Amino acid sequence: MWKAKIVVTYKPGILDPEAKTIQHALGNLGYRHIQEVEAGRYFEVQFDKTLNKEDAESLTKEICDKILSNPVIQKYRYELKEVD
Amino acid sequence: MWKAKIVVTYKPGILDPEAKTIQHALGNLGYRHIQEVEAGRYFEVQFDKTLNKEDAESLTKEICDKILSNPVIQKYRYELKEVD
Repeated sequence: MWKAKIVVTYKPGILDPEAKTIQHALGNLGYRHIQEVEAGRYFEVQFDKTLNKEDAESLTKEICDKILSNPVIQKYRYELKEVD
Repeated sequence: MWKAKIVVTYKPGILDPEAKTIQHALGNLGYRHIQEVEAGRYFEVQFDKTLNKEDAESLTKEICDKILSNPVIQKYRYELKEVD
């Protein structure tokens, strides 16, 4: 069976208030040596055993484009892993 | 310079309403062959060039424990990558 591990992040140039808030909080708490923080969403999608790798990959792309990300402001990457 | 790539997910047995909502939405939209969805947060933290790998790793653990995750209900994993 195939599992997709998906990371959705903002495209370059899109303001990410959560990341900026964390970055400022870390500075206020006295953490130095941190140059930049990026934030995003992480998903794992477990497909059933009827899907082969190609099917799992095309379904992953489809749900990323349509449901898990907003393609106007976000980008995604994924990897497929075979699991028991 | 070192960059930490961090994934924060719920511990087993902790209800994840976002993941369940996405799973149901996918079912309602007609997507079959999806057994389970997990959701979590993704962070990239860029350290400045004064930190070596050991320092970057211990700082990563500290901010994960204290700021980026709630250790009562969440777990995290990370990898460190050398970048220019």
